[in-house]
Amino acid sequence: MSITFTLTPIGRVTSPRVDLSDDDWGAVDAIISLERALFTEDAVAGLGAFSHLEVVYLFDQVDPAAVRTGARHPRGRRDWPAVGIFAQRAKARPNRLGVSRCQLLAVVGLELHVRGLDAIDRTPVLDVKPWFEEFGPRGEVRQPPWSHEVMADYW
Amino acid sequence: MSITFTLTPIGRVTSPRVDLSDDDWGAVDAIISLERALFTEDAVAGLGAFSHLEVVYLFDQVDPAAVRTGARHPRGRRDWPAVGIFAQRAKARPNRLGVSRCQLLAVVGLELHVRGLDAIDRTPVLDVKPWFEEFGPRGEVRQPPWSHEVMADYW
Repeated sequence: MSITFTLTPIGRVTSPRVDLSDDDWGAVDAIISLERALFTEDAVAGLGAFSHLEVVYLFDQVDPAAVRTGARHPRGRRDWPAVGIFAQRAKARPNRLGVSRCQLLAVVGLELHVRGLDAIDRTPVLDVKPWFEEFGPRGEVRQPPWSHEVMADYW
Repeated sequence: MSITFTLTPIGRVTSPRVDLSDDDWGAVDAIISLERALFTEDAVAGLGAFSHLEVVYLFDQVDPAAVRTGARHPRGRRDWPAVGIFAQRAKARPNRLGVSRCQLLAVVGLELHVRGLDAIDRTPVLDVKPWFEEFGPRGEVRQPPWSHEVMADYW
């Protein structure tokens, strides 16, 4: 398991959001600019037929030294339980990967215009996938109360 | 954009599925074993309160030379449109990242017992996140007919 893998960003986010604050992402319009040195418009052919994207990105502004491997209170809130890093979606996590869904507004050349992407300006993007309903969770979803509370003002 | 990032697997999949075939993942029971050299059970504290996981993994059996950057017919099916690599979820994609949701059956020490994870035996896992309903797509989802057809026997 000492193996490592090297990834190259496929593009970068341009967003009015430059701070790492936690809430109010729903109305944020941003652009994912795919790397012109790596791709042509073929890479996004047909993407406009999808309403939503799944985006994998890197929390590159998180200092690797700050990454947590154990348990912590989400957002430092002691009224919520201390849960393991893999039981929450905090940024300061091993490999610093973010995954989220956003609305695709338009595809303009190699620019993907999106709404509700929770990534700040200049975030490196590692993958973009179309959202298929079939790839959502199968069966009834169960999650603890704190996880609903943390999301109250997120979008 | 010539920057690269190095990622270290947080664990590995043990699965009865050893082939790269495309369908019938829904009933597959597998285990994600988190790396004992990196984590203690603190890392998964509270995870059992969630019914589903979002797993980020590496399609490490895809030869990097086989990665596509343009358009192709999903599964080579010429009756489906040729669409860009970022308009489909094919394995042979830049950075070779897989993202999917599976059911969490049990947490046993650093072993996560899961159902419906579409990753073969020994797949390196890069992240595990709890699934929050709120992180699903907001608003109505639209996707083209071929994307429903490709999923007919997937789970």
